[in-house]
Amino acid sequence: MHSVAIIGASGYAGQETLDRVVGHPGFEVVALGSDSLAGSGASALDVRLNGSLPRFVPNEEALASGADLTFLCLGHERAAALEPSADGVVVDLSGAHRLADPALYPAWYGFEHPRPEELAGWTYGLPEVSPPVGRLVANPGCYATAAILALAPLAGAIESGSVVVDAKSGVSGAGRELKPGSHAGFVLENVSPYRVGSHQHAPEIAGALGYPVCFVPHLLPVRRGLIATCYAQIDGDARDLIEAAYAGSAAVRVLPEGVAPELSRVQHTDGAEIGVYDERATARPVIVCALDNLGKGAAGQAVQNANLALDLDETLGLKLTGVPV
Amino acid sequence: MHSVAIIGASGYAGQETLDRVVGHPGFEVVALGSDSLAGSGASALDVRLNGSLPRFVPNEEALASGADLTFLCLGHERAAALEPSADGVVVDLSGAHRLADPALYPAWYGFEHPRPEELAGWTYGLPEVSPPVGRLVANPGCYATAAILALAPLAGAIESGSVVVDAKSGVSGAGRELKPGSHAGFVLENVSPYRVGSHQHAPEIAGALGYPVCFVPHLLPVRRGLIATCYAQIDGDARDLIEAAYAGSAAVRVLPEGVAPELSRVQHTDGAEIGVYDERATARPVIVCALDNLGKGAAGQAVQNANLALDLDETLGLKLTGVPV
Amino acid sequence: MHSVAIIGASGYAGQETLDRVVGHPGFEVVALGSDSLAGSGASALDVRLNGSLPRFVPNEEALASGADLTFLCLGHERAAALEPSADGVVVDLSGAHRLADPALYPAWYGFEHPRPEELAGWTYGLPEVSPPVGRLVANPGCYATAAILALAPLAGAIESGSVVVDAKSGVSGAGRELKPGSHAGFVLENVSPYRVGSHQHAPEIAGALGYPVCFVPHLLPVRRGLIATCYAQIDGDARDLIEAAYAGSAAVRVLPEGVAPELSRVQHTDGAEIGVYDERATARPVIVCALDNLGKGAAGQAVQNANLALDLDETLGLKLTGVPV
Amino acid sequence: MHSVAIIGASGYAGQETLDRVVGHPGFEVVALGSDSLAGSGASALDVRLNGSLPRFVPNEEALASGADLTFLCLGHERAAALEPSADGVVVDLSGAHRLADPALYPAWYGFEHPRPEELAGWTYGLPEVSPPVGRLVANPGCYATAAILALAPLAGAIESGSVVVDAKSGVSGAGRELKPGSHAGFVLENVSPYRVGSHQHAPEIAGALGYPVCFVPHLLPVRRGLIATCYAQIDGDARDLIEAAYAGSAAVRVLPEGVAPELSRVQHTDGAEIGVYDERATARPVIVCALDNLGKGAAGQAVQNANLALDLDETLGLKLTGVPV
Repeated sequence: MHSVAIIGASGYAGQETLDRVVGHPGFEVVALGSDSLAGSGASALDVRLNGSLPRFVPNEEALASGADLTFLCLGHERAAALEPSADGVVVDLSGAHRLADPALYPAWYGFEHPRPEELAGWTYGLPEVSPPVGRLVANPGCYATAAILALAPLAGAIESGSVVVDAKSGVSGAGRELKPGSHAGFVLENVSPYRVGSHQHAPEIAGALGYPVCFVPHLLPVRRGLIATCYAQIDGDARDLIEAAYAGSAAVRVLPEGVAPELSRVQHTDGAEIGVYDERATARPVIVCALDNLGKGAAGQAVQNANLALDLDETLGLKLTGVPV
Repeated sequence: MHSVAIIGASGYAGQETLDRVVGHPGFEVVALGSDSLAGSGASALDVRLNGSLPRFVPNEEALASGADLTFLCLGHERAAALEPSADGVVVDLSGAHRLADPALYPAWYGFEHPRPEELAGWTYGLPEVSPPVGRLVANPGCYATAAILALAPLAGAIESGSVVVDAKSGVSGAGRELKPGSHAGFVLENVSPYRVGSHQHAPEIAGALGYPVCFVPHLLPVRRGLIATCYAQIDGDARDLIEAAYAGSAAVRVLPEGVAPELSRVQHTDGAEIGVYDERATARPVIVCALDNLGKGAAGQAVQNANLALDLDETLGLKLTGVPV
Repeated sequence: MHSVAIIGASGYAGQETLDRVVGHPGFEVVALGSDSLAGSGASALDVRLNGSLPRFVPNEEALASGADLTFLCLGHERAAALEPSADGVVVDLSGAHRLADPALYPAWYGFEHPRPEELAGWTYGLPEVSPPVGRLVANPGCYATAAILALAPLAGAIESGSVVVDAKSGVSGAGRELKPGSHAGFVLENVSPYRVGSHQHAPEIAGALGYPVCFVPHLLPVRRGLIATCYAQIDGDARDLIEAAYAGSAAVRVLPEGVAPELSRVQHTDGAEIGVYDERATARPVIVCALDNLGKGAAGQAVQNANLALDLDETLGLKLTGVPV
Repeated sequence: MHSVAIIGASGYAGQETLDRVVGHPGFEVVALGSDSLAGSGASALDVRLNGSLPRFVPNEEALASGADLTFLCLGHERAAALEPSADGVVVDLSGAHRLADPALYPAWYGFEHPRPEELAGWTYGLPEVSPPVGRLVANPGCYATAAILALAPLAGAIESGSVVVDAKSGVSGAGRELKPGSHAGFVLENVSPYRVGSHQHAPEIAGALGYPVCFVPHLLPVRRGLIATCYAQIDGDARDLIEAAYAGSAAVRVLPEGVAPELSRVQHTDGAEIGVYDERATARPVIVCALDNLGKGAAGQAVQNANLALDLDETLGLKLTGVPV
């Protein structure tokens, strides 16, 4: 049994991570951190949580719990400022340790990185593309995961200046915090692009792929799920490259021709699905990746990374089965 | 007063056209055609319709009514087979007369055009780009309207091989007909690309712009509204070109920097709004056009075309004002 | 032309009122009050608003504008504290002047009414049931409007202890303010009862009907629209009574048997529709009223009340026509 | 290992049952019946289904498979006509065997029951209220499950003439079949009552409770989930009675005061949650039960019934844990 601490357990990413940890056969929660809920029992977060979990403690206290595995589910700037624990595996679900170059933080995240010298100690863990190495794992962003899963297999064949990633996400991607863009009176019966040219996942995608992409996110009137439609000019057969990349993958399903990716099949799961199309008017492949922004795009991938970092079966505790309608 | 016949009045496009015609100060309905509702009063379609409208008659009978203005709101193949009335303005909301080259019909619409020699007699009427000439007007498709409004002003400056149109539409775009893709159990909490590389609006867009585009439509879980996110490499300033094109336009609003297009502001209207962005990672303009697929994308534009064909004020009967939340 | 001031113009009720006023042939906006937007042009609220409107001023300044007609679109407690202008018609969209008995305010609104002696000067204006008298009009709540329209015609025939009002509203009913219950991550794919037994519209309904009802509101995952399903044991024929009450009404449509009320037909309108059913298992009438919480449930009714108070045609500026799908 | 046949596996109830069976440690699928998919592999239903399942066969053939356990997921009339297999447990998810009195079928289901003499051999299995006895189990309807769970504990204390059940369901409750009421263009941004006074779950509820209730269902714009708001006059303390009834229940959670039932917490689960309120204006308890119409309202309860009929742990294969946001 590995002891687990969740820091920032009361946000969306924290709660979803808790959901996976509670269902994991090799994990045991020893500390639940939340500054707002400190002192309350776990049921203060959700009535489904019963008495077997520890009470919430302040995040700093949870950080110091000495757990074998710590999930950081905090805001970017807060996570960047933390002094990581002396040992144990740490998976950071924020963007605080995703960009190798600290100089990128002011422009894309709006703050100077407070501990730039430590960035080199973290690895960007996207299991199917760049499995984690070492005990400090930066967990990828939801959009970045979808774009990289779609495009990484085309490396070498791609005409990089041509790449467009048009992405659409459900509202849980923006977190539990109250803001005008998450108000249901804005979200329902609406769709809108946002942060065009300035979303912090753009440099993350570029860092992983090795070239910049034109990335435009849109907000969807759905609770959870994300779809990235990727356009590229390549020299080669996109389907062959992608099928080869994910043959045998437990979490990524390449769809046969004629089956379109759907949010509804990946919601509440930790897998992703990819459709590959030949668009006939301009003879360009279109690669579409769908995943759950809170699953493969956050908590599910965090647990997958933790499993790998702890030398466990990659799929333990993940939601990868089932065929609900 | 111009007499009006609506053929296929019981579908979504027909009902929305009726909505505009009933509110038009210069139009009077003289024939409502519907094969399924023939013999019933107008309230059989919608309880809000009271006794002042004529009863439904079979479509053939409505076609023969001798109205000054006829709206064809039928399926593509059915509309293609019609012998247009001897005189009067005819606005066809289907795709039956949008493609100049009859050879394109089998590949994109799935049928041989039954009256290929007549295609030359129709004009493709997109008021802001190619106002209708003559009495036979092919009304543009919803996706095509959005893509053309976004891209036509860039003609000349554009690197045509680079153009991607990633479009998203509400479910009413697929009509009132029952099909698996319109079942709410499929649509809700879901988003999916469809007809990638084979949607019939692709050749329509190419015909209007003069070059092929990579066009991918997606189905959204919204009742009405459509957004087209357009990517292009151009030589020039996209915002300048687009603002110049629509200065003074009654129906197209170019948004100032910092304001994103939103479905919610164009739903239930006959206008469109366009946002222009400089995406900084790849220095590519992104042009986003939002409209109501049943308004500017169908019935509203049909009435706008009819007004022009009849030498009336272009905006009569259109929904272009109001600021509901 | 009547001069109009809107106080609290940047909330949902304020913006919808502005929408109606801008389209009203006899009204002219002379003051737009908003403490948060004071100093900005009208387009700061919505890009669709152009230069012909005055700039926003602080609410106190707008209140002192001396307009012929003032709409108060503020929070309950704020509105209760205002000293009404010396003359001119005032329509208050908040609950500050709806309850005749000041003693009810602490229990149902959570504050002592600061000007209890003035409550008697206001009339509760529900045009079809209790048209406004005098220049100070308390505009009914959205739930209350639906419940009263459904039940008022049964007065006398009703067994009052039996009345249940099960109501469901879209999220705009809770206003533009950010709160957990309006977060789209909570609202989407969710339905939940709230404020059971403690919603402030309960005493308002009781005050208008003359007996208490069991009132339970629920939050729906829709942007706008409200439906109240009302259950009562009566001695008489519910349909006859209701049809008689609204024969000739411009804003209330009693549906024929076999047609169910639908949110979609009343959204974006200032009308209401009522369905009457005989439930066969317990021989009890069920009366269902649907309306738009921002239309007949707020801004539309406010303008209807203003028209009556100013001796104008009741329907001027209202949205009562159209048959969109 | 128990061998399992699913008849009508390609509908919503069939697919959800398959989902539970595939995840059940003691069940093995030996026959998948579907007349429309006969001859195809399981992936024809859903791309997530891989090669380990048998191919679809015609329903008659699946029925004759001699499985230890058979789930009937057919339409009411079709299921009523079947000759049940000679042995093995059969759980019927349709309404064909729910009403004890065959005379009720013409009025509520629209057909004469073809095998009235066999109804007495089936038991109505609602595990928490009336656990199944024998090998033929009629699985309750979704609405009925919610209403009975809310009201059964009040038996004896209730004033039966007073009971109102106002219920709201997501669209999957209507099945995968194409019909106007399930078209997303009708469902989205809409809510509407339907089958008021004539829904077939009314006599089912009455049969289980022993008295008729006023039952009104409404269609919600959500994919899955159902909420029943129940009103009753009782002599006693509703909360005490309900908490006593479900103390120790694995599938039914009685919420503490101050926590409202929510669809979102029960979606994709096989549990139910119940909130109990004292409504202060009329001093009447309000009991609200939320469940997933495809989980506790269909497939989950079917598996729960099967477990009981086979003397297995009631919760095997059920979805009763997890705290996703």
